[in-house]
Amino acid sequence: MATFEKLMVPFLALNLDRRSRIGLQRQLYDQLRTAILSGTFSPGTRIPSTRELAADLGVSRNTVAGAFDQLLAEGYLEGKVGSGTFVAAALPEELLRVNAEAPRPARSRSPVEALHASRRGQELASIPLSPSRLAHMEPRPFRPGIPALDQFPRALWARMAARLARHAPSAMLTYGDPAGYRPLRQAIAEYLRVARAVRCAADQVIVTDGTQQAFDLAARVLLDPGDTAWVEDPGYLGSRAALRAGGICCMPVPVDTEGISVRDGMARAPHARLVFVTPSHEYPLGVIMSLARRMALLEWARKQRAWIVEDDYDSEFRYRGRPLASLQGLDEAGRVIYTGSFSKTLFPGLRLGYVVAPEKLVETFVQARALASRSSSGLEQFLAAEFLSEGHFGRHVRRMRALYAERQQTLLVAVERELAGALEVQPSDAGQHLVAWLPAGSDDAAISAQAAAAGVIAPPLSAYSMEARLRPGLLLGYTAYNLRQIREGARKLAAVLQKAL
Amino acid sequence: MATFEKLMVPFLALNLDRRSRIGLQRQLYDQLRTAILSGTFSPGTRIPSTRELAADLGVSRNTVAGAFDQLLAEGYLEGKVGSGTFVAAALPEELLRVNAEAPRPARSRSPVEALHASRRGQELASIPLSPSRLAHMEPRPFRPGIPALDQFPRALWARMAARLARHAPSAMLTYGDPAGYRPLRQAIAEYLRVARAVRCAADQVIVTDGTQQAFDLAARVLLDPGDTAWVEDPGYLGSRAALRAGGICCMPVPVDTEGISVRDGMARAPHARLVFVTPSHEYPLGVIMSLARRMALLEWARKQRAWIVEDDYDSEFRYRGRPLASLQGLDEAGRVIYTGSFSKTLFPGLRLGYVVAPEKLVETFVQARALASRSSSGLEQFLAAEFLSEGHFGRHVRRMRALYAERQQTLLVAVERELAGALEVQPSDAGQHLVAWLPAGSDDAAISAQAAAAGVIAPPLSAYSMEARLRPGLLLGYTAYNLRQIREGARKLAAVLQKAL
Repeated sequence: MATFEKLMVPFLALNLDRRSRIGLQRQLYDQLRTAILSGTFSPGTRIPSTRELAADLGVSRNTVAGAFDQLLAEGYLEGKVGSGTFVAAALPEELLRVNAEAPRPARSRSPVEALHASRRGQELASIPLSPSRLAHMEPRPFRPGIPALDQFPRALWARMAARLARHAPSAMLTYGDPAGYRPLRQAIAEYLRVARAVRCAADQVIVTDGTQQAFDLAARVLLDPGDTAWVEDPGYLGSRAALRAGGICCMPVPVDTEGISVRDGMARAPHARLVFVTPSHEYPLGVIMSLARRMALLEWARKQRAWIVEDDYDSEFRYRGRPLASLQGLDEAGRVIYTGSFSKTLFPGLRLGYVVAPEKLVETFVQARALASRSSSGLEQFLAAEFLSEGHFGRHVRRMRALYAERQQTLLVAVERELAGALEVQPSDAGQHLVAWLPAGSDDAAISAQAAAAGVIAPPLSAYSMEARLRPGLLLGYTAYNLRQIREGARKLAAVLQKAL
Repeated sequence: MATFEKLMVPFLALNLDRRSRIGLQRQLYDQLRTAILSGTFSPGTRIPSTRELAADLGVSRNTVAGAFDQLLAEGYLEGKVGSGTFVAAALPEELLRVNAEAPRPARSRSPVEALHASRRGQELASIPLSPSRLAHMEPRPFRPGIPALDQFPRALWARMAARLARHAPSAMLTYGDPAGYRPLRQAIAEYLRVARAVRCAADQVIVTDGTQQAFDLAARVLLDPGDTAWVEDPGYLGSRAALRAGGICCMPVPVDTEGISVRDGMARAPHARLVFVTPSHEYPLGVIMSLARRMALLEWARKQRAWIVEDDYDSEFRYRGRPLASLQGLDEAGRVIYTGSFSKTLFPGLRLGYVVAPEKLVETFVQARALASRSSSGLEQFLAAEFLSEGHFGRHVRRMRALYAERQQTLLVAVERELAGALEVQPSDAGQHLVAWLPAGSDDAAISAQAAAAGVIAPPLSAYSMEARLRPGLLLGYTAYNLRQIREGARKLAAVLQKAL
């Protein structure tokens, strides 16, 4: 009885909260385990019976028995036939030492210096992927690179999703082919052949979880840590980030009116193994790479046996003239890896992109893709395949092309009306944003921050630059916003600039 | 006229195929471009008028004009006012040289040796991820690790998908938070706290594109190339593959009846920086790690400042006794990274997994995840969040637990009836497969191949082993197959074994 009374003291300290979402049995289990781990109940201590404890705590005997069963199963308690239940005598020494030593809450227990990532992890943590850490927030003017979400044919998409999910063939529910769902690969290959003059068979198309994964795979498949790659300066942060994450040195190469300067690249890093380019619409400047420059780049890659990664991210949106064919379609030497996604044509939340790889690299890309995340979503791949093959994709892109041309015009008018003198914009034949030039000498990063504080998103051009000394400017995306939003955004931006300039 | 006639010869060689799916204008464009690139038409050559060529080819003048416009836009042709259209004089030298040198079909043109991947790429290509390259094919007995796809509540899922897609808030369509959709992170955290005794806040949960990505991130965030990690031997191929892909040396550590042998690990690689374990149900042996071994492993990690990656892949399926709490829940030192996915509880085609990281590592994991593939699918995350928070998930798992217990029993009976003497199986308290032991001295890999040829999938135990010398055996998954399929599979396997043994 003495032992029992002594024991009841800590047991009475048990505190079950009946209003908690966590069940009583679970609470009891947690508290008993903590008491054992903290040494409050030492090994060999006899535990009161379920009847006694249930009466004491005012809970059902089943609740107590359930908690005891689990502690027995996990080895914290042991039952001895005919003599009751005890705190396990055989608890490993280590357990007791760990807990006796430092009875503090879990996460704060370890020395800070031991909790950091590897050197590679720390490097990863330092790489900027976007000029804003909030790129995933609700789109608002003038965040670039977001399609007209309000114009997406939701009802059609919902009907197709429902039909597919209802029938859900095993092939959609089980692990997918890491190369991608075959009908989707076929539809992508056909689309790219016709619309982008990409030379490819369906076998060369590898479906990815978006373009960022395509870049990550390209860096890992094509390059070794320490290799050098040319990147456009100014240029897209996502591709540069993927290279750096793969241990690659990024050599900034200036962009002129014809695109990336091959001559400068050769002077700065003649032995580069790869170049990342956006020939259809240089990001963020919007330059369309000239044919001469394309040929020079291909020739360099052929001679140097280097790779060209072509990011054809928004080529569908060309408003005047015909789109230039892809760089890949001009390549006679099999040095171009073509990448694209449905983020700009359908919507970014659909995590589907693609790589078109030279035949000899296909297997390696597929393997790298499988290692990275096995395969893309079954439902999304089936949906996209149907959307493409039934012509919905083409219709949607054509409708958006007309809409985006209008929205660009709306933005041009709004800037002219509200921002004349402060911002200088030119119409653009392509893309989803305009570069709005600020007066020379102004600080685009500071102005962008002030605009953000006033509720307007306008990334500073300088955020995309490594060494390039550019006239300051802001990126103004227009595709996702209607007339009212564009006008309101322009007015807010005008107020910011009036103060800042 | 002489020039014109000479020119018409190659033009007459143009060959438009009216039955092709590729439009006539596109065909004409392709063939003209090829003729220019191959030097058939040299720079400065005059091109016949659209009228002449249209008449000659028997196509509309618009078709020809369209092709010409594109070639003009791309710089292959140039128009001189009043004097017609010419092959561009300014075609870069490089272009002509490339094509004059080697007028062969595109992909076969380059020297083979120049077309290979980097050393890292070649290493990636050599890493096995699964014992079969066809792991994504239609599930058939006894492929392990596939849930009962036929029992998934498709109608409910379809209704939810349709409702979500129809309303599709911008947050679902735009770029997602790389850490994951907040309500899903909350639902996962709550589920793991209650069901797995994981100690975590929603902030520590990072949504991934499945477990394989979680492994890939862990390798990159926690380790540097050249570091050593302990892996269970035999063990899961996916985690080992992710480590190797990250440049990590995998040290095989034997598994005994209590789980991974910490003593052997310390003897073989005392300075390892990480250990990958499956404590709830060792893959593939099915051993449940004892409490003593768990404490010893945690103590080692604490002292060594090493990381433990806990792959809790099928802990939901425990048929007898209560599930042991997660290893993470026992960790007082913040050394455990917990990973799981919905592949076994819902279906693998849903590419959603999760990492629970110690607080100080969360930001680095989120950043690495963003670099790898930005974010997971909007629709799938919204769907999963609703499925969990509305209780459908719990109901489905409970129903499957009962069903899988039955299916395991069915398999045990079928093996007893059809395969007694050839295969030895024991009931298992947990998991989704059984290990069926073959007579000592038999070749499980050869038998597995023969079974595959007979239409039965039964991965050989040896495929998961690095150095471990195990009795030969086959893995028999049972969760995805009904009574008829299990019996038929057992009969086919019996026929194979009768010949082989």
